[in-house]
This record gives sequence, C-alpha cells and structure tokens, in this order.
Amino acid sequence: MNLDDMILVSVDDHVIEPPDMWDGRVPKKYLEHAPKLVRQADGTDAWEYFGLKSSNAGLNAVAGRPPEDYGYDAQALSDMRPGCYDVHERVRDMSANGVLAGLNFPSWAGFAARQFLRTPDKDLALALLRAYNDWHIEGWCGEYPDRFIPLGVVPVWDPALMAEEVRRLSARGCHAVTFAENTVPLGLPSLHSDHWDPFWAACEDEQTVVCMHIGASGVPATTSEDAPAGVPHSITAVGLIGAAADLVFSNIFKKFPTFKFALSEGGIGWVPYFLEKIDKHYEYHKAWTGEDFGDKLPSQVFQERIITCFIEDSVGIEMRDKIGIDTITWECDYPHSDSTWPTSPEKLFKDISHIPDEDINKITHENAMRAFQFNPYPVRPREKCTVGALRAEAADVYTGYHHVAKRPKLPPTAAALRENHHPDEAI
Amino acid sequence: MNLDDMILVSVDDHVIEPPDMWDGRVPKKYLEHAPKLVRQADGTDAWEYFGLKSSNAGLNAVAGRPPEDYGYDAQALSDMRPGCYDVHERVRDMSANGVLAGLNFPSWAGFAARQFLRTPDKDLALALLRAYNDWHIEGWCGEYPDRFIPLGVVPVWDPALMAEEVRRLSARGCHAVTFAENTVPLGLPSLHSDHWDPFWAACEDEQTVVCMHIGASGVPATTSEDAPAGVPHSITAVGLIGAAADLVFSNIFKKFPTFKFALSEGGIGWVPYFLEKIDKHYEYHKAWTGEDFGDKLPSQVFQERIITCFIEDSVGIEMRDKIGIDTITWECDYPHSDSTWPTSPEKLFKDISHIPDEDINKITHENAMRAFQFNPYPVRPREKCTVGALRAEAADVYTGYHHVAKRPKLPPTAAALRENHHPDEAI
Repeated sequence: MNLDDMILVSVDDHVIEPPDMWDGRVPKKYLEHAPKLVRQADGTDAWEYFGLKSSNAGLNAVAGRPPEDYGYDAQALSDMRPGCYDVHERVRDMSANGVLAGLNFPSWAGFAARQFLRTPDKDLALALLRAYNDWHIEGWCGEYPDRFIPLGVVPVWDPALMAEEVRRLSARGCHAVTFAENTVPLGLPSLHSDHWDPFWAACEDEQTVVCMHIGASGVPATTSEDAPAGVPHSITAVGLIGAAADLVFSNIFKKFPTFKFALSEGGIGWVPYFLEKIDKHYEYHKAWTGEDFGDKLPSQVFQERIITCFIEDSVGIEMRDKIGIDTITWECDYPHSDSTWPTSPEKLFKDISHIPDEDINKITHENAMRAFQFNPYPVRPREKCTVGALRAEAADVYTGYHHVAKRPKLPPTAAALRENHHPDEAI
Repeated sequence: MNLDDMILVSVDDHVIEPPDMWDGRVPKKYLEHAPKLVRQADGTDAWEYFGLKSSNAGLNAVAGRPPEDYGYDAQALSDMRPGCYDVHERVRDMSANGVLAGLNFPSWAGFAARQFLRTPDKDLALALLRAYNDWHIEGWCGEYPDRFIPLGVVPVWDPALMAEEVRRLSARGCHAVTFAENTVPLGLPSLHSDHWDPFWAACEDEQTVVCMHIGASGVPATTSEDAPAGVPHSITAVGLIGAAADLVFSNIFKKFPTFKFALSEGGIGWVPYFLEKIDKHYEYHKAWTGEDFGDKLPSQVFQERIITCFIEDSVGIEMRDKIGIDTITWECDYPHSDSTWPTSPEKLFKDISHIPDEDINKITHENAMRAFQFNPYPVRPREKCTVGALRAEAADVYTGYHHVAKRPKLPPTAAALRENHHPDEAI
C-alpha cells in the first residue's frame, strides 16, 4: 500500500460551536436563556450563559497556528481557521489532509454535557442539550453523510432521560455518544453503581458506542497545580487507564453483553502492559475477591468491548497483536494542538507502512466503520475515499500557518490548563 | 544461561517492623511515647502511637498464605511467616527463593515517613525516625551485608534535616532513601518548588538513590471509593507515571546532574509508550512552553536518571531496548500479595530465558548493584550468589501454605484498600 491509498477515518476531532447553532432549535420560552457568543473587551469571544463566561480555549483550536503561538489563552472565533466552526470549511480541511471522515466532540457543551449538568433548570438543560444534538446532526453532519460520524451528548443527570436520548439519537442515525471517563468528579455515582443501567440498556439495544474522551470529567490529570505543561500533557492517558479498569471490573459488561466503549485519545502503547497487569491481578487475587470472568481472561473482555484510539503511537503499532488488531482506531484530533493536521497521512504512514495491508486497513478505517456503524460508500465510492483522491479534491486549500493577534498568555502550567479545561470557570 | 545460574537482586521487598525495634535506640525521655505493638481484642496486633492504632495490614504480609486467605484485614504477627519480621528467617526465605539480596521498605513507618510526619513533636519524630533507620541498618541489614541493600526513611517535614539524614545514612553505608511519589497529598510542596533543593543536593553529593514506591503518598490510585479491588490493583502504576512526568519536566535534573530515582513497583511495560509521549509533547509544544532539554530528548533524560522496576512484566522485557536496558531492575516484593515468592526464579525465567545472557544479568542484578552501590562479592563469592547455590543452602525451608485464624474480612473495594493503606486510620 502507498500513502495515497490509505482510507482515513478519524474517531476523534472537535467542533467549535458556531454562534448561530441555537437558531430555530430552542423553544421560544428558553431563547432568552440560551448561550450567546459575545465579543469581550480584550478582543476574545466568550459564551455567556447563566452569568458565566466561557472562552474558546487556546490549545483547543490551534490548527494552522505556528507552535510558538500555541497557549492556554482565550481566543476569538476570528483567530481560528474557519474549519474549526464552519462545516464546509471543515470538510475542505479534512480533504486537504486526506481524511475521509471524522467523529466530532463538542467544545463549549463539554464532553460530558457539563454545561447542561450545571444548569439549574433541567427542562431548559434538556431543551438546550437536544438543540445541540439536533444542530450536530442536521447543521454539522447532515450535509455530508459521507464525511461525519455523528456523536451526541447525553443528559448525564438522569439515566432514564439518557436512555431516551440514546434511542432518539439512534433513530436519527447517530450511534455514538460522549460520556465521562469518570463520573465521580462530576458528583455522580461511579460505574460500579447500578444507577446507570437504563443508559447502558439503551446503548445495548441500539449498539451505541459510548466514547470516553480524556478530560471528559472536567479534571485533567496532573500531579500538582504548579506542574509545568509537560506533566499534564504527558499523563493524559491515566484517566482512561482508570476508565479501562473500571469497565473491565464493573458489572456493566456482564449485564449488557455486546455494546462498546471507546477510549478517546487514550493512546494504545500502554494497553499491552495493562492487559498483562489485569490478567495477573485476576490470577493472584480472584480466590479472595470473588471476581469471576467465567471462561475468559480480563484481557479478552477488554478486547471484545473496548475500542482503543491513537493519534501517533508507534509503540502501540509495534505491539498491535497484544492490543488486539480489531480494537485499534485512528484519530486526527483536529483542531487541537496534538493533531497531526495537515500532514496526518505522512505522520501515520511513517509508523504503519511496514505492517501488512490488512492491518493498515483495520487501523485506518475498517475497525472504526464497523464499530460506529458508519458506511460512506453508498454516497462516495470507495475509490474516492482515499488520501490521494481527497487531497486531489482540495488542492486549493491553504494549509500553511496563519498568525493571529498577540494577547497576554496564560502560563504553561497545570493550573492554567485546568482553568482552560473548565469552560464554566475560564474567565 | 540456566535458571539456577541467575543472580537475583530485588530492589523492592518489605519489612514488617518487629516489636523490639525501638529497644535501646530511643532516648529515655521519648520512650513512653514510642510506638508499642499491642494485641487487640480481636486477636490482631496493632501499633499504638499517639492515640491511634495501626494494624499490620492484610495483603502486606501474605507470603505463604493460600490465595483464598488474602484480604485487606488486620493481622497478628503470629499470622505471618516469621520471615516478615525476623531477619534470620527472612534470609532463609530469600535463599529458598534463590534471591541473593533485597532492598526493604518500611511498613508501619510509611514509605514517606508518614507516621513521623504526623507526629506533632518534631524532636520526638526525628528521634524515632533515626531509631528506625538505626534499627534498619544494624538490626535488620547489619548481620547480613551480602543480603541487604539498606534503605533509610527521611524527615520529609524539613529538607535541611532530610539532607542531614541522607549524609548520616550514607556515612553508615546506606545509599538509598524512600520518598513520596507525590508530595502534594502529604500537604507538602510539589517537586516543582525549590523547597526540596537541600535534600536533592545531599542525594547528589552522596549518590543516594531516591525510591518512589507506589502508594507512598498514602493515596492508592483509584477511580472511586466503591471500585472493586481489581481497579486499584490494576492502576497502581498511574502514580508513578505522574512521578516520572514530574521528574522529567521539573528542574531537579538540571540543577543536580547525576543522582537517580527509582520507580519502585512501577512496572516497565508502559515506559515505551510514555517515552514516545514525552518526546512528542516536547516536539509539538516546546516553542510556547519554553521547555528546554538542550541537545537531548526528554526520553534520554528519563533513561539517564530513572531506574525502572518490575515484578512480572513480559511486555516490558520484550520492549527492553525502548525502555533502556541499563535502567531495568527486578523486584521480588516479599511478603506482599503480588510477590512471586517462593517461585520467583521460575516466573522470572519464563519471561527472560529467551533474551541474551548479557541482558539477563543487567536486569537480574547488575543494574541494581551499580545504581545502589551494592557489592556482596567481598563477603560472598559470586559462585555462591546464584539461584542454585542459595537454594542449596536452604533446602530445609518449608515454602508451602500456612493457614491462619479466620477473621472478619474487609470487603474487596478501593475504600477498604485505602483504609488499609493509611495505617493511622486503619482501626
């Protein structure tokens, strides 16, 4: 296989919500309370909602900025590539990067619907959450069914409502939802409670994938508040290592036998270590803990139920047979700072060009298409889905750097990242 | 190489402090306040100290118990193999397992001197801490200089005192100290503060190894209080992944260029993933964070300064060249529940028999001997240090199961582990 022959489906990108997303989707009585994107005195934009201002945070929309301009600071929409918030430009940016399709996480709304969770009026919260999902399905993914895997947010404050939303989303063709990697920091019961069973039941019925993105609980992993940026940036996986342990040792998989979870942006190179560790624990401790995986090992249960996701991870590629070749999916992470855009094919191919074509196809798109029930071929023939074909369609897209207004920067510390990570506290 | 030809030096075992450890080592005026091991109404033993009772916790001394008897519950000294607390029996247990030498962490005292940190009278705390160290050097390691690598505890409440103790220990032949993997949960400044510089300076001068053991900060990693045992047991490494990131991105290595840290019981299979991650972070973010590793990569700095440690880790063995073959050391973890005693040679050899002899020697003993300034050969000729030779000396040692009194067990949950982990709250 050549680089141009790859078909790339990314299971982790991000949308920056545009200001008009609520138009026509929020019931009239709630309109005055709907979030509004307002230009601030310092030239940045912020969503104003229930007395709090939430900026679009620095590293979350840096595609195309020179690395020296990265930072945790707030931004204006006009600082960003239009592909961050304009779906037509997004599709062009995807094509310029040879990427066929993407699954887009929310920004302002929060990976675990945090903005709606903190809304006191839960009728309003549900109305806005559904408006977000309707906008995402119609306004973002709708015009390009061959280019997006829809991803809904769920009303985490009420498992019965979550189940209802999962079924509503599924009926609209959306087979994935974003959820917390750990519910406890959100003030909600853990995955070891049966509290969530109605949600899991709906996911099982609809075969909806539950995506757990790093940082979804609102608490980026760090060791201290004064740790430099390198610390939280290097240990992003630890929350998902915990999530993986929670899932494997919870009762969820036993009660609901087939639906899947994705460890979004979790990386894959740590997985072989983790699988050996959980199997050793089971071997040494099952006699007194009562843990019982029947005729399986914990590692097998992981491989059957958990989708692993990486941006760049040559270690994981090398260890792919220990991870489970059918579990591995690829991410572009546009427009975040760890994204490989606009040279994703080059960076990925360097790590996978030496492996069999069959494995490349599984990792680049087949695993993702199967797990997320995504089939673009009726709309776009397979031969038009390749890196080479897509890039040929977007030869006019400028992918060089753009410079933006210099503003005071937040320091590169874990504390600043946390502020940036909690949109409700960001200003 | 055959199994019997290996030389095994373990950099992580544990001593259960015996009741007579303070005798003759605590100044008379402090004797009435010294901890006392007292039989409790339920038949277990507990250290009574400043109004708190601290039991010897279940999983911490299970060597020789059948797995169905494991648990987080408190124990009596008489429930344990004498090798837990009696050095002569310990050496026999080591020989029966083919292990030449071990580095022993404290139990009651805490990996980060927690019992002394919480003592209001700091003169008393220091007197007891020094008594512990003197007992450890004289009463535990002293009679068998060929069988133990001494390990001191340090007065973490005062970096100047820590420096003094490091120098005092070094003069007594002790070139390793145990310290927290994260100081913040102990209420102390982070590693990104210059608070600790006097301590680091002493370690640099004396080439003392700073050991960071999992759980040393007193907070075992978990996702929730109600998580089953499999969760905290499977994610023990995450605290040390954080510690590794702290060390690499702190200023410690720049200010003090050669002394080393050990990631005790951290495992090694995750290291290749972590090294790729820190190098990627540096590549993508150094332009705005100001991080500067000169002509090196972060991964090289890790390999130069950090000793990695594993009990069983076939993934790490396979990836040893990506970890750094000169950084890897082996652990027995006697008498804890994850120990491979009494079949350590068999379990280890299964994972390493296929690698070159040169690599086996580095992993089993050469790396540890060099890093910890340990040389047993003047006392015990090399040919008497092998698995085969040591086992021949201890052919009479019973290594089968022993059953102990059944007592009510704590549930296998993270909450129970935490209670067990905080000796000061255990009863």
